[in-house]
Amino acid sequence: MLAHRLIERKRDGGRIEPGEWRALALAYAKGHVPDYQMAALLMACFLRGLDSGETAALTEAMLLSGDRLELAHIGRPRVDKHSTGGVGDKVSLVLAPLVASVGAAVPMMSGRSLGHTGGTLDKLESIPGFRTNLTLAEATKQIEKHGVAMIGQTPEIAPADKKMYALRDATATVESIPLIAASIMSKKLAEDLNGLVLDMKRGSGSLLPDLDRVLELAKVMIRLGADHGCPCVGLVTAMDRPLGRACGNALEVEEAIAALKGEGPPDLMEVTYALGAEMLVLGGVVEHVEAGWQELEKSIASGRAAERFQRVIEAQGGNPAVVDDPSILPQAAECEIFGAPRRGFVARIEPRAIGRGIIEMGGGRTRVEDLADPSVGFVITSRPGDWVEAGEPMATVFARDRAGIGSGRQALRSAVVIADEAEPPLPLISHRVTAAGADVYRRE
Amino acid sequence: MLAHRLIERKRDGGRIEPGEWRALALAYAKGHVPDYQMAALLMACFLRGLDSGETAALTEAMLLSGDRLELAHIGRPRVDKHSTGGVGDKVSLVLAPLVASVGAAVPMMSGRSLGHTGGTLDKLESIPGFRTNLTLAEATKQIEKHGVAMIGQTPEIAPADKKMYALRDATATVESIPLIAASIMSKKLAEDLNGLVLDMKRGSGSLLPDLDRVLELAKVMIRLGADHGCPCVGLVTAMDRPLGRACGNALEVEEAIAALKGEGPPDLMEVTYALGAEMLVLGGVVEHVEAGWQELEKSIASGRAAERFQRVIEAQGGNPAVVDDPSILPQAAECEIFGAPRRGFVARIEPRAIGRGIIEMGGGRTRVEDLADPSVGFVITSRPGDWVEAGEPMATVFARDRAGIGSGRQALRSAVVIADEAEPPLPLISHRVTAAGADVYRRE
Repeated sequence: MLAHRLIERKRDGGRIEPGEWRALALAYAKGHVPDYQMAALLMACFLRGLDSGETAALTEAMLLSGDRLELAHIGRPRVDKHSTGGVGDKVSLVLAPLVASVGAAVPMMSGRSLGHTGGTLDKLESIPGFRTNLTLAEATKQIEKHGVAMIGQTPEIAPADKKMYALRDATATVESIPLIAASIMSKKLAEDLNGLVLDMKRGSGSLLPDLDRVLELAKVMIRLGADHGCPCVGLVTAMDRPLGRACGNALEVEEAIAALKGEGPPDLMEVTYALGAEMLVLGGVVEHVEAGWQELEKSIASGRAAERFQRVIEAQGGNPAVVDDPSILPQAAECEIFGAPRRGFVARIEPRAIGRGIIEMGGGRTRVEDLADPSVGFVITSRPGDWVEAGEPMATVFARDRAGIGSGRQALRSAVVIADEAEPPLPLISHRVTAAGADVYRRE
Repeated sequence: MLAHRLIERKRDGGRIEPGEWRALALAYAKGHVPDYQMAALLMACFLRGLDSGETAALTEAMLLSGDRLELAHIGRPRVDKHSTGGVGDKVSLVLAPLVASVGAAVPMMSGRSLGHTGGTLDKLESIPGFRTNLTLAEATKQIEKHGVAMIGQTPEIAPADKKMYALRDATATVESIPLIAASIMSKKLAEDLNGLVLDMKRGSGSLLPDLDRVLELAKVMIRLGADHGCPCVGLVTAMDRPLGRACGNALEVEEAIAALKGEGPPDLMEVTYALGAEMLVLGGVVEHVEAGWQELEKSIASGRAAERFQRVIEAQGGNPAVVDDPSILPQAAECEIFGAPRRGFVARIEPRAIGRGIIEMGGGRTRVEDLADPSVGFVITSRPGDWVEAGEPMATVFARDRAGIGSGRQALRSAVVIADEAEPPLPLISHRVTAAGADVYRRE
């Protein structure tokens, strides 16, 4: 009767009380509330909204439906980053070992790719042998030893969220600010953090394309963090084009390794440094962002960052030689250059079309249980705003076979727009959001 | 993918096309669309609404998900009545044999009690041996022979509606005008009717207490009937107090038998005659309502109506002696008079409190699979507007045991309000609704 009453109340625009969220999350995690009742409630929440108290209570309820990491004893500040997701976004692969290499601990719990966006776990698993399904005990041990673990949401962490997230995906109830915020924060707060940085994607390829909604989501998450003693800072970054050049699981790992060696594309490096510097400030490792930035650059220049990634790979069962020899990664059977269809300015490189192209080529998943081919994807060397001559190489397609090359070319043809004049793309990092509000971003 | 796309579109206030409703209803009936997706869609429909074209398409889709009765060959006009449900509403039990006894055929498909309202099937099954689960072939044969069958929704009739109705009950998506209208009409249109009369309950004990919404629902159903060549007339009747005196399955059968013999309470007789006369006009059995009314009165006075009920009971496996000797019905072990708690006017007898009282006493069901005790209930002899002295008998409680008597007394104490002045109750029949619109009701 509990679920029915709550559905009815939310349907009519009413409020669900903290104790009710708590009882509901536990009952749902245990299978006592059926999916169809939860689906009706989620749609009512989507359309009627949750106020800030309800969002906090739902977050708390999902957090308390499971276990948490306990890391206070490790004596280093614990910080993490969350991204709302995009195409070519391999920042986590670089950031986790990099930040750990300068003295913070990074207990990073990531997700899988779904829809057009990639997932850190899938990228890591393209490294031969790499295991992401560590237990909480294994993860804790590894963080004690190496300062970083890169794992998936274990069955112990926020199980109510895990079930609810899968259900939201199937019932078109994903793009709700309170539901997104509660889902993300219930997992991140289980990491026992001292600070969290949010990479808030905006633009056509992001979960919430509209800037106002991105800022609203950041505000809600920052408040949830503050409620739990976990200060958060959000940076709003561009997802009107892919980040970096590589799009596709193994290709992105290769680019991340290059970045850890100081050879990453400039946009990827700038986002990585900006987020990493905020993490170091939140963790108290440095006094201000500029000092953080310097520490991170030094670590990369010295090779410490790449070496830390090597240790993580080894600790999690992967082949650490990949850092020195990326050709160990799965290689596509076919590749082909894509030339500019005409001369002009690159007006757009549409991330959704790129992401869908990877799925078409067998490199993504449309359902959680699909198997992805890690080798396929794109390396896109042109950027919006560039001038290109007709036929000039803009990208390389990596595929399993000739049919895949055809799909890939088709995806690029729909993703790439060349025009006589080009609007400027979105600023790479446009806003910085804290508990005090949102400001236009300036590197201090 | 179909369901996800439709959920998303309806969630955003869009329209679902006829072919999509059709594909969805078939896929859902076959189990290819899971309940959780249908639940999310139903909540989106509840909150966003369906336009008249969508309501028609959903009705058609559910109708076509199953079989229909084929009765054109029987050579008599086929008419039926639907009630939106109430407490003490035993009209169907009287009306089906009565209308059949004057020359129309009544292929009546009814529902079970759920929540505070009773269900015709449960009432009939309190007659020892009575079977309501006839197949379509059995029902057709019986209608050929006796002009009337009183059955449940068979598995062949609108299976998509059957599944969806159960799901709506569990997901708080019942009280939606387009969903109610489509559900009722998909079943009634499967009866192959020449006309349908709608008993539209209004007042605190009805599904839609508000008159405007009752009239809106009538309008939607009448249009759906017209689209399928089934003219409908609606009468708006009072459900701010129970109808008749008896409330409870066996007690209501007893009152229905009395009514068929001309000894029913005046309000029950008036509603029955008014609805029955409309059925006879729709079926072309009589020219106008007044003539219908006379035919019905004559049939009762002559004993033909009671005799027809006897034939139905016998044909459906029940003991026909019950018509002459109602003591064959299950009898409650305990009964007790309820006296007026004070002197004054009877201001209210709240039907929901009475309905819930029956459930508490074990005579109703809170879930479809519950077993109900048919013997328990109330006979309420006072009506709103009556003057009573303190302690004057107002009702009798029928229960399984002393605890049941206690629950019943408690229910009456909360249902009955005595006051120094009494507002007049709702008019028994307030409006007549046709395709041309709603008028204040006047017996012609």
